[in-house]
Amino acid sequence: MSRDLKAELMVKIQDDLGRIENSLGKNLNANLDLARKIAGHLLFSNGKRLRPLLMINSAKMCGYHERGESARSLIDFSIVFEYLHAATLLHDDVIDEADMRRGAKAAHKVWPVPEVILTGDFLLARSLSITAETQNLEIVSTIARITEEMSQGEIDQLNQKGRLDLSEEDYLSIIRRKTAVLIEGACKCGALLANALKEKTDALLNYGHNLGMAFQMADDLLDYTADAKALGKNLGADLREGKLTLPLIKTLQRADKKDKAIIKNVFENPEFTKKEFDELVLMIHKYKGVSHTQKKAMEHVVNAKTFLEIFEPSEQKDLLTMLADYSVTRKV
Amino acid sequence: MSRDLKAELMVKIQDDLGRIENSLGKNLNANLDLARKIAGHLLFSNGKRLRPLLMINSAKMCGYHERGESARSLIDFSIVFEYLHAATLLHDDVIDEADMRRGAKAAHKVWPVPEVILTGDFLLARSLSITAETQNLEIVSTIARITEEMSQGEIDQLNQKGRLDLSEEDYLSIIRRKTAVLIEGACKCGALLANALKEKTDALLNYGHNLGMAFQMADDLLDYTADAKALGKNLGADLREGKLTLPLIKTLQRADKKDKAIIKNVFENPEFTKKEFDELVLMIHKYKGVSHTQKKAMEHVVNAKTFLEIFEPSEQKDLLTMLADYSVTRKV
Repeated sequence: MSRDLKAELMVKIQDDLGRIENSLGKNLNANLDLARKIAGHLLFSNGKRLRPLLMINSAKMCGYHERGESARSLIDFSIVFEYLHAATLLHDDVIDEADMRRGAKAAHKVWPVPEVILTGDFLLARSLSITAETQNLEIVSTIARITEEMSQGEIDQLNQKGRLDLSEEDYLSIIRRKTAVLIEGACKCGALLANALKEKTDALLNYGHNLGMAFQMADDLLDYTADAKALGKNLGADLREGKLTLPLIKTLQRADKKDKAIIKNVFENPEFTKKEFDELVLMIHKYKGVSHTQKKAMEHVVNAKTFLEIFEPSEQKDLLTMLADYSVTRKV
Repeated sequence: MSRDLKAELMVKIQDDLGRIENSLGKNLNANLDLARKIAGHLLFSNGKRLRPLLMINSAKMCGYHERGESARSLIDFSIVFEYLHAATLLHDDVIDEADMRRGAKAAHKVWPVPEVILTGDFLLARSLSITAETQNLEIVSTIARITEEMSQGEIDQLNQKGRLDLSEEDYLSIIRRKTAVLIEGACKCGALLANALKEKTDALLNYGHNLGMAFQMADDLLDYTADAKALGKNLGADLREGKLTLPLIKTLQRADKKDKAIIKNVFENPEFTKKEFDELVLMIHKYKGVSHTQKKAMEHVVNAKTFLEIFEPSEQKDLLTMLADYSVTRKV
């Protein structure tokens, strides 16, 4: 099922994907050899390009047509969302001392930390320049707000690292700012570029919000349930970094005293063994932390698709529907 | 002379300074306790507020009047230039492993590096939000370009660390992006906010460019000639970080083989002694590296003031003239 969905998706997006890859490379200043290498290392290692694809298809669904005179094409603006994402990942991986990312070594394991920090800064700055070229004040304000919210979310997440008493509400607030804000912003900016009516713009924002929440929940689940090789990074990375996510939050709520103590012990010892981790995963299944997370993610997917209902049938609407489904069925 | 100039300047700017301090604090989100502390540590430790002052006085000289309905006052927008500056300093000090800044410990010597990196990101993001609120596309584009140029300059500077063959041209290109771009941007944005004619906007940009170049040259000179206690950081910090600046570049051009070897030895050994450093300073005086840098800085001050000639006499014009003079006579 998931494999079929993925194959069908790939056929639909391959033209746009090619154009996105091309624009991602073109917009890195050729004078900055090192930054280009570092950004390219991350940008071209199996990124899903979810955010640019959402922006492009949102715009087209709202009737955007390329105009010859437009200073920047839709594709060129779409990469803002990939650059902003990459900028965050570069700084995140430095801060979390992460080893792996997308099946490759994290950038700061290949290049010195100063270079990686500055490359993150550069990608953020480059995004702003591309955004300014749209000459659209609503888009500029949206990107500014996204950047600020993401930054606040990062600080929040850092402050809450190592907290075992994180509530489901705290978690939702973190993933909203960490992930959903950028994804909903991509969808909203697509609508704005197409001069869509407020009703449609809001619908796409809400679609994106729900997709983003579902996507991050599924991502957090993969850290406990995926095949490590396919995932391209070690399992249990969140746990090792002291980040509590929904599967474990729910498990902690339901666990008895003895099991809670076992979880606490693993959580507080980042050097936990594979055996200890496997035991924890069994516990997350036993207390239905996995199924609870799947259920919450599915609710968001259903909500996301509901917000597409006001749009006429179109190729893009089909694609956005499939992307919502894909966000929770993906295995990597 | 310099003391008198400073005293006279302080009288002229004290009202604006008070308002700037107030706005700097107000615009740090109260929910972000740690970021507020970190940003505040740097922001409120003897900053000169040169950039906000330049923006405010440029706007007023071009006839800007506060309007009751304006979403953000001139003062509130002016702090963008202090936040952008502070964001750069926070990341810079992490990258350079600097110990001191403005007479206090560098932020990353008081708080963990991850927190300091994210606070830098937050200040940048906050600047963009304040900028977007001006709803002025030219200002947005100017800030975006500044951010990108500064980021490219940081990467360039990092790439050129440790290079003893840096030319005067390389140096000028680095300080332009590191310092002048933000200062000229502050002056230009003041003109833009006041809807000044292109001629005046360009004149202020050129004034700011020359002031910025002079300011950085004077700053680089202080690293060799200042009183360490008054400067608030150790002398020779640039040298220790492998950063070649104009006084030493000129000295290297003129030094004989024996003296060049001595300089090379100190440059390649960041653990140099006070005695070795003092010897190097004598050499910089002997080969007129100091007077060459002073001369170049003075040329920029003269240029800066020339660009003010098209403006009618005003209190602000006097102040901008004094700031140009102050940029090269300051002792700290």
